[in-house]
Amino acid sequence: MKEVAIIGIGMTKWGELWEKSIRDLTTEAALKCLDDAGVDKVDTITVGAMSGGLFNGQEHLASIAADYLGQRFVPATRVESACASGGLAVKTAYMEVASGLAQYALAIGVEKMTDVDGGEATFALATAADQDYEAFHGITFPGLYAMMAYAHMEKYGTTLEQLAQPAVKNHTNGSMNPNAQFPFKVTLEQVMNSTKVADPLRLLHCSPITDGAAAVLLAPVEVAKKMNKPYAVIIGIGHATDSIALCQRKDLCKLDAVEQAAQRALKMAGKTIKDIDFAEVHDCFTIAEIMVMEALGVVEPGQGGPACMDGLTALDGKFPINPSGGLKSKGHPVGATGVAQIYETVSQLRGEAGDRQVKNAGIGMTQNMGGSGASSITHILEARS
Amino acid sequence: MKEVAIIGIGMTKWGELWEKSIRDLTTEAALKCLDDAGVDKVDTITVGAMSGGLFNGQEHLASIAADYLGQRFVPATRVESACASGGLAVKTAYMEVASGLAQYALAIGVEKMTDVDGGEATFALATAADQDYEAFHGITFPGLYAMMAYAHMEKYGTTLEQLAQPAVKNHTNGSMNPNAQFPFKVTLEQVMNSTKVADPLRLLHCSPITDGAAAVLLAPVEVAKKMNKPYAVIIGIGHATDSIALCQRKDLCKLDAVEQAAQRALKMAGKTIKDIDFAEVHDCFTIAEIMVMEALGVVEPGQGGPACMDGLTALDGKFPINPSGGLKSKGHPVGATGVAQIYETVSQLRGEAGDRQVKNAGIGMTQNMGGSGASSITHILEARS
Repeated sequence: MKEVAIIGIGMTKWGELWEKSIRDLTTEAALKCLDDAGVDKVDTITVGAMSGGLFNGQEHLASIAADYLGQRFVPATRVESACASGGLAVKTAYMEVASGLAQYALAIGVEKMTDVDGGEATFALATAADQDYEAFHGITFPGLYAMMAYAHMEKYGTTLEQLAQPAVKNHTNGSMNPNAQFPFKVTLEQVMNSTKVADPLRLLHCSPITDGAAAVLLAPVEVAKKMNKPYAVIIGIGHATDSIALCQRKDLCKLDAVEQAAQRALKMAGKTIKDIDFAEVHDCFTIAEIMVMEALGVVEPGQGGPACMDGLTALDGKFPINPSGGLKSKGHPVGATGVAQIYETVSQLRGEAGDRQVKNAGIGMTQNMGGSGASSITHILEARS
Repeated sequence: MKEVAIIGIGMTKWGELWEKSIRDLTTEAALKCLDDAGVDKVDTITVGAMSGGLFNGQEHLASIAADYLGQRFVPATRVESACASGGLAVKTAYMEVASGLAQYALAIGVEKMTDVDGGEATFALATAADQDYEAFHGITFPGLYAMMAYAHMEKYGTTLEQLAQPAVKNHTNGSMNPNAQFPFKVTLEQVMNSTKVADPLRLLHCSPITDGAAAVLLAPVEVAKKMNKPYAVIIGIGHATDSIALCQRKDLCKLDAVEQAAQRALKMAGKTIKDIDFAEVHDCFTIAEIMVMEALGVVEPGQGGPACMDGLTALDGKFPINPSGGLKSKGHPVGATGVAQIYETVSQLRGEAGDRQVKNAGIGMTQNMGGSGASSITHILEARS
């Protein structure tokens, strides 16, 4: 199996981009990535997108990408694992290079969510849950994560202040990210007094509806070495599933797929969580960031809330989480998120993250989640030059 | 890169299966496949499905598959390339094994198309075309292939009799396939006098709306060798794209992606088309089978129609095509079709195809197409024992 590097990154500004179609977003991120790598022609393309069908009336997005990038005839694959589709695109591109089928493998994540109204978007997002046992009966994603939040508060005594803190921290980081949808700070009081969505979750506990795309280019390490600039190497990948319906989990406070995926990635990399310098994680809701910290082993179960208050995960903390601003501030175009996590991690490892640069960023981790934790993909990246 | 074998196959009966949900179909085909292989636990799952969102309100189908197969925590990926999603699932599973990431990689293809009404199904299928430049303006797939058929008739003199012949041949083959949706023969007259759909295409030129699933299990050849029964080895894979919109093709009579994918697969296998004993191809419409024959190099451009009349592609012809009955008679649950082509090819290579057995079946080819030819995937399989 070949060692695989990331030699180029690109992303669009994220937000409500009324003037850009899904193919515009796809090509803009990809062309920025190819420019960054100095590569014109790729061998394969993988597109991560959750629901081109329901959001845009457009499946077959991989052929759209190849066609509109001027890369007609290139093999192109679309992958989907709900909100983990982006991470899956990077894993698939990794396999293309690692197996020797491709030299330059382009992974693109994209979602254009504002082509439909709020109700239709809520329906589309709910197809990441169990349609027969959850969505059909009316529950939406804020509702699912609200149940997890209440279970966590009940079992571990997690407080409403702790539940609000990841939003404050992520907006602080995101205020330094020029691509973020909401690049401004919020206070603990603003979060705790924002409009209620699904008790105990309020508007500022939730990631937004976003249009956006991100892209990364993968190649064998021997290619990267000839580029005379810093690059990142994928030293670990872990991917796992869990029951799709919450009702079939033994413990609502535990994200087993996240734990499994992280353990697999760490094992492949020959590392422990103590070797990781920072992480981009899937904070679709603030409770998710708290539960993910615990599942990754950053803190013991139940200690996620207190650790947020102590500043462990702040940009200048011992284990910075979501220096990009996370899904909360940067935005969450669902299929793009996993690729943008890799974009941020590579930016940090190359020392190009500007005001939000993590000090001594040598090894970074990403964690991208589908549904209420029914799938999770973790990548571990190491800086090289 | 490891050499990869197919060590198990399974499929459901295909048809209008009102009593079975998409998760029922998925698990039924997969369990039959695992039984065939004698394997309980897999390392990865890949699901090929075109639009769980639009057909079933259910994305995240890979996690559904892992969950309902009792394989929770197993990494599971859904891939999509419109009607080529099944072929793409097999290619993705191949990469999992070839790269060394997995020992047992399960590929499942599934589509449950009758949960929606005819208009909704037509909308869902049209998302495989270019939404902005084709589907939005009202054209459907019979219309797109009708334009290709008229172009072929105009350029090469292809006749209405020739256009009808693949349906007659495929229904003859399908009448011997117990899993086929329409296992009966039709006459040339019946095809030519059936209800007009999009001139010159009539009902019996078109593949149907179908519910169904198929599954295959991949493993390294060293594992297959220990099984003491015949198996198939994937000796070639080719995958290519083309412009998604017909209006951007130089020649409406030529399927460039099909040609490119086949040439790549043949090159990887070190074979020419003359080394291939039979093929399963994507006859979504009879004109597609004629154009695919030409793109694969089975006949010269323009000779597809006459070759059909001469019996070249009949079960006892020199180059049997679609011994399974093809999409026309067997049915076309879009995401399942590519996996079922592999199912049929392995059945033939193992000598287990019963009355529709191809004589001296040593090397078989599959060709699975998305949209009006905007993507194509070809596998070449060789019999081993």
